Amino acid sequence: MKSKLVQLLRENQGFFLSGEKISIELNCSRTAVWKHVNALRKEGYVIEAVSNKGYQLMQNEDLLSKHAILSRVKDNPLFHHIAFYDSVTSTNTIAHKLINEDVKEGVVVVADEQTAGKGRLGRKWASPKRSAIAMSIILKPKLDFRQAPQLTLVAAVAVTRAVKIVTGLELEIKWPNDLLIKGKKVCGILTEMQADSDRIQSIIIGIGLNVNQQHFSEELVDLATSLQKEGDRVFDRAELIAAILKEFTWLYETYITKGFSFIKPLWEAHEITIGKEVVARSASNTKTGIAIGIDEEGVLLLQDDDQDVHRIYSADISFEN
Amino acid sequence: MKSKLVQLLRENQGFFLSGEKISIELNCSRTAVWKHVNALRKEGYVIEAVSNKGYQLMQNEDLLSKHAILSRVKDNPLFHHIAFYDSVTSTNTIAHKLINEDVKEGVVVVADEQTAGKGRLGRKWASPKRSAIAMSIILKPKLDFRQAPQLTLVAAVAVTRAVKIVTGLELEIKWPNDLLIKGKKVCGILTEMQADSDRIQSIIIGIGLNVNQQHFSEELVDLATSLQKEGDRVFDRAELIAAILKEFTWLYETYITKGFSFIKPLWEAHEITIGKEVVARSASNTKTGIAIGIDEEGVLLLQDDDQDVHRIYSADISFEN
Repeated sequence: MKSKLVQLLRENQGFFLSGEKISIELNCSRTAVWKHVNALRKEGYVIEAVSNKGYQLMQNEDLLSKHAILSRVKDNPLFHHIAFYDSVTSTNTIAHKLINEDVKEGVVVVADEQTAGKGRLGRKWASPKRSAIAMSIILKPKLDFRQAPQLTLVAAVAVTRAVKIVTGLELEIKWPNDLLIKGKKVCGILTEMQADSDRIQSIIIGIGLNVNQQHFSEELVDLATSLQKEGDRVFDRAELIAAILKEFTWLYETYITKGFSFIKPLWEAHEITIGKEVVARSASNTKTGIAIGIDEEGVLLLQDDDQDVHRIYSADISFEN
Repeated sequence: MKSKLVQLLRENQGFFLSGEKISIELNCSRTAVWKHVNALRKEGYVIEAVSNKGYQLMQNEDLLSKHAILSRVKDNPLFHHIAFYDSVTSTNTIAHKLINEDVKEGVVVVADEQTAGKGRLGRKWASPKRSAIAMSIILKPKLDFRQAPQLTLVAAVAVTRAVKIVTGLELEIKWPNDLLIKGKKVCGILTEMQADSDRIQSIIIGIGLNVNQQHFSEELVDLATSLQKEGDRVFDRAELIAAILKEFTWLYETYITKGFSFIKPLWEAHEITIGKEVVARSASNTKTGIAIGIDEEGVLLLQDDDQDVHRIYSADISFEN
């Protein structure tokens, strides 16, 4: 009911909607409308109420709430169950807990803030309150566990397309899980799974996206950016989340029904590593060569000076100048 | 303290040990000895007490308790934390929960009974009270997730060796996770992991071993057996658990420090699939051919009539006659 009310008010932003009109649309009493308006105000929505005119949703800062997201994903066939939190350690950690409680495929964990966001290899990822997107998608595909890294690539394509649609900004994909704007990191994807030797039991795709951050710390300012810094305006996080879920839905269904070969060219179209001379650093060694592509499992292929091709499963990639 | 007392009584089985002797060995009062004896009796130990003689542990049915196991693994460098339960749904499920609570490597979950034991591909595995071993080992190796199936093979070698040492019985290994005696299944291994695209975060090796079952249901009697049925005597489950953990410890350390190539020949020595004409059935297809070996990742290699070699990641194997 609350999410329908948010949707109705948003569709009429800039105009007053009478309590009577709303009560008819929502099929409830005018007293109930008043109660829902007050509940939304407690969540932080600024709703003006004027006698004989009705209610109006005012422009406000980028508020994220379960209802704001639900009102935008109601038609999504896969992702319409949102587990929303004001603040969590990390949305992937919450997703692991939900999986142990046996949740179904398609649950999306969203938090306004992460206090211990996770990056690759135990690194930290900052998701400050009221400005970033921290979300984790739970899926249970019937796939061999060796295919899990492909889903990171599916998610990278989904985020790249959604950001383009909502903001007009072009993201660059850097294997395996970084999304950049002009070389600065704007999004990271952390895919985690529970699996046995036969198949994936469940998979968590964590997406951390810098949306409305205006400032980064001195040590990050040359490495990271946000959509707001690059696009010079504030973006609606709920709209971005819904767009990411929408793009992911059709890409995932294409991937499951037709295979990774249908996703690979979409990924390659935005990728900036392939064809370049790169350094691949892992905990155990460093390899230099030309990134000649990815294989069918999403593994990076690196050709060294002796023309030997190495399969890179896990590494940090930097560019040779 | 209780586990030390069990150990002391077991070492002197057939003899009386005076309360005074025990109190000196355990460095506690004779009243404390009496209290611990009573606590052990509540766990089901039959301990005879005679004035002026002392205490004696009587022969009893195969009782499994935390202390019975702890007294036998106290010198194990890796596995000395036992999480013991009388009855659980499945030890792997408990292990998943413990991992989410951030337990350290080396915890072993043991249960006297599983009410919803898990096999491969969502199948059931029966672990009836007072007769079977149901245990799950928690490890956190720094390995690529593609190496996880190798740990199933390490565990298969460990169980095979431990059973031989304790019972004298020879097990046969059938790829990927079955241990058989004369073609009948006596043990299953279910390896589950939590991982990201870069590495394994934690791995659970679930081992279900039929020890003292005397009867199997009509539908299982031709397919399954127990150590008791094959060896014609009751075996001590705590002794078997400790032996499995001891064998696993050195095999695992060899695997981590020297690599899978040191484990592979030990596995192949007990394996019955390689060299045979087999049918490999998976959900999506059926392949027939000669099982010519496993590769470095533990994947089965099947050569068909056209001499093409197929990599079998997941399948049920049966033998062609």
